[in-house]
Amino acid sequence: MTQDTMRLGAFFYATGHHVAGWRHPSSEADGGLVLERYVGWARRVEAAKFDLIFLEDGTGIRDADLRSSERTARSAHFEPVTLLSALAAVTSRIGLVATTSTSFNEPYNVARRFASLDHLSGGRAGWNLVTSATDLEAANFGNDRIARHADRYERAEEFVDVVLGLWNTWDDDAVVIDKASGQFSKPDGFRTLDHRGKHFEVRGPLNISRTPQGQPVLVQAGSSGPGKDLAARTAEIVFTANQTLDEAVAFYRDLKERMGRFGRAPDDLKIMPGLFPVVGRTEAEARAKFEELQALIDPVVGLALLSRMIGGHDLSGYDPDGPVPELPETEGGKSRQQLMFDLARREGLTLRQLYLRIAGARGHSQIVGTPAQIVDEMEARFRAGGADGFNIMPPTLPGGLDDFIALVLPELRRRGLVRTEYEGRTLREHLGSRPPAGYGPGKASASRG
Amino acid sequence: MTQDTMRLGAFFYATGHHVAGWRHPSSEADGGLVLERYVGWARRVEAAKFDLIFLEDGTGIRDADLRSSERTARSAHFEPVTLLSALAAVTSRIGLVATTSTSFNEPYNVARRFASLDHLSGGRAGWNLVTSATDLEAANFGNDRIARHADRYERAEEFVDVVLGLWNTWDDDAVVIDKASGQFSKPDGFRTLDHRGKHFEVRGPLNISRTPQGQPVLVQAGSSGPGKDLAARTAEIVFTANQTLDEAVAFYRDLKERMGRFGRAPDDLKIMPGLFPVVGRTEAEARAKFEELQALIDPVVGLALLSRMIGGHDLSGYDPDGPVPELPETEGGKSRQQLMFDLARREGLTLRQLYLRIAGARGHSQIVGTPAQIVDEMEARFRAGGADGFNIMPPTLPGGLDDFIALVLPELRRRGLVRTEYEGRTLREHLGSRPPAGYGPGKASASRG
Repeated sequence: MTQDTMRLGAFFYATGHHVAGWRHPSSEADGGLVLERYVGWARRVEAAKFDLIFLEDGTGIRDADLRSSERTARSAHFEPVTLLSALAAVTSRIGLVATTSTSFNEPYNVARRFASLDHLSGGRAGWNLVTSATDLEAANFGNDRIARHADRYERAEEFVDVVLGLWNTWDDDAVVIDKASGQFSKPDGFRTLDHRGKHFEVRGPLNISRTPQGQPVLVQAGSSGPGKDLAARTAEIVFTANQTLDEAVAFYRDLKERMGRFGRAPDDLKIMPGLFPVVGRTEAEARAKFEELQALIDPVVGLALLSRMIGGHDLSGYDPDGPVPELPETEGGKSRQQLMFDLARREGLTLRQLYLRIAGARGHSQIVGTPAQIVDEMEARFRAGGADGFNIMPPTLPGGLDDFIALVLPELRRRGLVRTEYEGRTLREHLGSRPPAGYGPGKASASRG
Repeated sequence: MTQDTMRLGAFFYATGHHVAGWRHPSSEADGGLVLERYVGWARRVEAAKFDLIFLEDGTGIRDADLRSSERTARSAHFEPVTLLSALAAVTSRIGLVATTSTSFNEPYNVARRFASLDHLSGGRAGWNLVTSATDLEAANFGNDRIARHADRYERAEEFVDVVLGLWNTWDDDAVVIDKASGQFSKPDGFRTLDHRGKHFEVRGPLNISRTPQGQPVLVQAGSSGPGKDLAARTAEIVFTANQTLDEAVAFYRDLKERMGRFGRAPDDLKIMPGLFPVVGRTEAEARAKFEELQALIDPVVGLALLSRMIGGHDLSGYDPDGPVPELPETEGGKSRQQLMFDLARREGLTLRQLYLRIAGARGHSQIVGTPAQIVDEMEARFRAGGADGFNIMPPTLPGGLDDFIALVLPELRRRGLVRTEYEGRTLREHLGSRPPAGYGPGKASASRG
């Protein structure tokens, strides 16, 4: 344990994380297309003093068979940076973390957009950088197949350096706005970057000044070796999926140790596993809620979800009640594929049993129980050194979120595990972390000697 | 004249269009970095029933000599799509038009972002598509030089087709959200695009449903032959700079005639020249306001502005009081270069006289006078068939905007030249235009027969 309270994220995904969550009678199933719904959810988590809202992203529909996409709420959804920009205008404290891929974007554009979001929000922006992992996304950008895993990470490493470098092209105090002298910014307050690398050549400077946070907070989710190294070097939040407590502690220790190689202190990166809670006043009530959702899963949707999770293999021809087939690893997200196959093997699951198992949490921790049971597990993982906090994945919206806030949050507060008031104004202040050396506030001027 | 009232845009540029406007004592010179300023300006123009807010953009600082950028408010500024997304959350009627370049973006990403803005705003999004015209912007994207003018337009033509095609991959009524049956969208309510062209290969479908406007409104500003053809084929607004009434009428007629070749009616594209008004209760008061701004222009900034306007030639070594040199045409924005050289030749201007002349309107119409004088000129151009409306370029913000609203707008209303209340909710309803055939609402389903 490296701090006295947990960090809490609100991971909004379509209209609830459970794959059939949108079908629940209480669900605001048009949330992906109606801003007012998101405004309502954002205001709830800000009032509850969460650290941040987290939005994932894909650069296309990721189901090979479009028929299954017609049966999920995820197919039609706001683009996350525009959505968070809108939420920035109607919130004041909550952190705003959006996913953007390094695979099909230019670093100059990404650096600008997140710098803009950081200015718009007064220092609440975070960028969850991912590499795109499906051929279906690649096909929207002139490629038949996704790049190899190693090549994607090589590009991502350089991409991050360019973005951090661009955020660094302006000094903290460059903008002076001296109307009398006509000096808008200090002499030499900004400068070119002149990056020349294997994947990118970028002159700079950025055409937006250094942001309230100095640089937006970097977030990552990769759990492969290259993914962990990139996170250890640059991230202040890692979002991860762990199954067992032992796995969680091992991952946590590994990642924090890697930070030392890059001259960083363990506290400067918060590890926040996903947590899918189904809450009831009694265990029986929680189970009943969960079974109500499970019963709504269309087998077509369940198999399509599973196909995505094991790297894109099409499972639609397999018997749902047969065993999980042995399939080769693809260039898709490797850690997730491994997680699925390990789980199936460990417990001897059929395809249907496996998709029913992941239909809610998609490989993240899933707890169905009373507030005390849920907080017991959260506290155990937190105190054992397996997590600095959790990214909460409500099964339905707003119901699953309201349940967490009304039932679980009071118990977390009673035990002193979470904040009751914001201490700071920026996302980084909420986290209590420091950005990677050489890129933090003031570093730009300092390094120029 | 093709309609009974003028369309009005509010073109926000840095903190006022006059190159020294930010130095005026009344100016909110931090507007490019503080959301509250833009919120205030947006609410003013919405209350005044303008059609739209218009934001230009560049993908980098466009001054070769960074020293001159230190003396302008334009160097550090929000990215426009994120800014308009924030404004979408705190406005309800005003149209939101942002510029995005086709040169250094991918059509799938652009289509998604503007679709998202259209959903966020309930149908108020517009995309001003431009081709990037400076080597300094190209250098932020791995290129030493900007592409040739003809090549940029070839790419832009295909880019627009892909974006329009992607917006068309979802039927109007595809999203049904039937919780009981589990059908989120209609069977075959969306489909792949499978575009394979010279510059792009894009599978689709878009991962966001058809937008409230069917497609966001396309806006263009190019006045070259290829630029006019692209506008005639796809745009519903053209933003342009004209000097004389004769030039304006000729441009208007040419563009509307070109529309016929693409099967479009003249009314479906609104031509809105830029207008830079300096308003006084008397002509002397207006002149004094203008001279106060002119006196604030730093020669370094004036010459740098002029350098940009003539296609990137560096003028810092020239005598400001000497003649405008004969310089070859570059691959930069061609129509603007021509406009500058024509103006200098016609009136025999020195470099200083030329930059003083363009320091406010940058080649657009500039009127310094009383409300009646300004409205006389607007009405004359409107009635002569030289404009469907105007994109108002306030010299300072908020002062220049407040002057226009307090003094000019009442005169426009008295003469019945502008609306006094919104008739519709979407940008397209404000304009009274129709999108290009084959791409409009309902066309997606219809064309599938």
